[in-house]
Amino acid sequence: MKLATYDNGRRDGQLMLVSKDLTKAMAVPAIANTMQQLLDTWELLQPQLQELYEALNTGLIDNAQAFDEMRCLSPLPRAYQWADGSAYVNHVELVRKARGAQMPDTFWTDPLVYQGGSDCFIGPKADIEMASEAFGIDFESEIAVITDDVAMGVSAEDAEQHIKLLMLVNDVSLRNLIPGELAKGFGFFQSKPSSAFSPVAVTPDELGDKWLDSKVHLPLVTHFNGELFGRPNAGVDMTFDFSQLVAHVAKTRPMAAGAIVGSGTISNYDRSAGSSCLAEKRMLETIEHGEATTAFMHFGDTVRIEMFDEQDNSIFGSIDQKVVQYQG
Amino acid sequence: MKLATYDNGRRDGQLMLVSKDLTKAMAVPAIANTMQQLLDTWELLQPQLQELYEALNTGLIDNAQAFDEMRCLSPLPRAYQWADGSAYVNHVELVRKARGAQMPDTFWTDPLVYQGGSDCFIGPKADIEMASEAFGIDFESEIAVITDDVAMGVSAEDAEQHIKLLMLVNDVSLRNLIPGELAKGFGFFQSKPSSAFSPVAVTPDELGDKWLDSKVHLPLVTHFNGELFGRPNAGVDMTFDFSQLVAHVAKTRPMAAGAIVGSGTISNYDRSAGSSCLAEKRMLETIEHGEATTAFMHFGDTVRIEMFDEQDNSIFGSIDQKVVQYQG
Repeated sequence: MKLATYDNGRRDGQLMLVSKDLTKAMAVPAIANTMQQLLDTWELLQPQLQELYEALNTGLIDNAQAFDEMRCLSPLPRAYQWADGSAYVNHVELVRKARGAQMPDTFWTDPLVYQGGSDCFIGPKADIEMASEAFGIDFESEIAVITDDVAMGVSAEDAEQHIKLLMLVNDVSLRNLIPGELAKGFGFFQSKPSSAFSPVAVTPDELGDKWLDSKVHLPLVTHFNGELFGRPNAGVDMTFDFSQLVAHVAKTRPMAAGAIVGSGTISNYDRSAGSSCLAEKRMLETIEHGEATTAFMHFGDTVRIEMFDEQDNSIFGSIDQKVVQYQG
Repeated sequence: MKLATYDNGRRDGQLMLVSKDLTKAMAVPAIANTMQQLLDTWELLQPQLQELYEALNTGLIDNAQAFDEMRCLSPLPRAYQWADGSAYVNHVELVRKARGAQMPDTFWTDPLVYQGGSDCFIGPKADIEMASEAFGIDFESEIAVITDDVAMGVSAEDAEQHIKLLMLVNDVSLRNLIPGELAKGFGFFQSKPSSAFSPVAVTPDELGDKWLDSKVHLPLVTHFNGELFGRPNAGVDMTFDFSQLVAHVAKTRPMAAGAIVGSGTISNYDRSAGSSCLAEKRMLETIEHGEATTAFMHFGDTVRIEMFDEQDNSIFGSIDQKVVQYQG
């Protein structure tokens, strides 16, 4: 099942059911008006939606409209929980190596997760408005899951059944604000502005056998200013799978329906796959040449993030954003 | 104006208008059913509510019911943003001193704020369920504000007008999980389980001249196991006021209506005022005697947090919680 949220001028937008091939869409007001409403009552509503979804895919819905990615907000325009992992430990190792620091061995056994802000996500095609290029503006191409209610202390084994939807994410990061914030010891805050999510969220079964062991076994494709920047396989080198990340998040508190958990920047040991953020490219340059030559994003720069199935069909639609100066 | 949220079996509860003396309450379904709905449309709805509030206070509402704190959830049972400051730098200085570390001078000029989780707040009278006493369970008595929509980059001067409501908070902390998490560099996560808020949220005008310069100039009273633990004045030694905290939160992203910003543990240089968390008492013991003798919370321990006006009337109702073993 594929779902999106259209901008209708309201804070939570209009829930839309989207056909598998991303060509048709329909509102489902008799079932739910918003993505959060659907997630709040998922078990009850999902079977009815599934029936409509099959009818939509087989052309049996007369009043279906053409699906328009440009009308999409993030599937959850605002959410109650956004916990972002850093599950590709290879990437974390590079961060440390580039600054000449050792990575603790426990990073291979204990997931890294930071608490993100979730009140104001930006849309998949929305400009990334920033006051200054000096912040060190970067994209991070990731995958995220949305859960239903999860009890405190859930095991990784039991966590997978709570994963209801998958999305792509651009976890925008302000690299030059990070060292100062981390030195203060309270984690990221100003260095993590609003994230953007893919136009479409999909149920795990949409990925067929590419959803295996709580990982997505497909490349995540990033273009920077129109050129291929990276296509690492999200199923390779993922040290902690999504079920393990959910269990980590729920260790000392429950999670409410609609909670979003991110993978962190997708990264492969195979360097020919490219990267999913500018920072990683800069780290590789630093390790190889002693200094980074790739700059962070300038006003006017664009990033496009998408994922394709084996027949080269877009699964989630694309995140496609431009950095612009905030006029505020 | 005073507002609360009753448990009605739904995720967001039932918005209740509460009389100034906390004796009467009424639902206001013609205006808003939930606190979030009210905050989403505050400018439009506030005048109508204010009129009803005055009628409720003067006994003109026939069908008002007796207000029952025991029926209250946190005013926002789930929220889109919970950013908690550490504005009493005296407290931060003690933390560092107790572990023999220097505090950077910038801590006096640049606010400390961490991103909290907001999907599952617990009620003001709810048990604090934890799997293990070994986590180092502690309370933190604080004040928090709720804002309406705040634009990115707002100045501290302009921020105050966005502060719509005030509450008390118990920012439950798991002290023994903090060192490990901070060493990982991503900030708090498992060490900050679900927070609890006071039964009642109040508009700033309810505090009269005790709301001055974006600070609350009254003691915050904490009882631990029935004995007075601390009553530091929240208006004294607050290095960053709430407007400055809001401006810090909004530096690189907007804030959505219903965003909650906390003060951090209230702490006075005058040690006779006592403390607002066990950790501070332990730090003072460590500095004075070389070791901490006060234990963290055991199962069965209770904490009560409240604030009184100059006539000794409770302003927010009380947070009153017991720590119990999580049965999972």
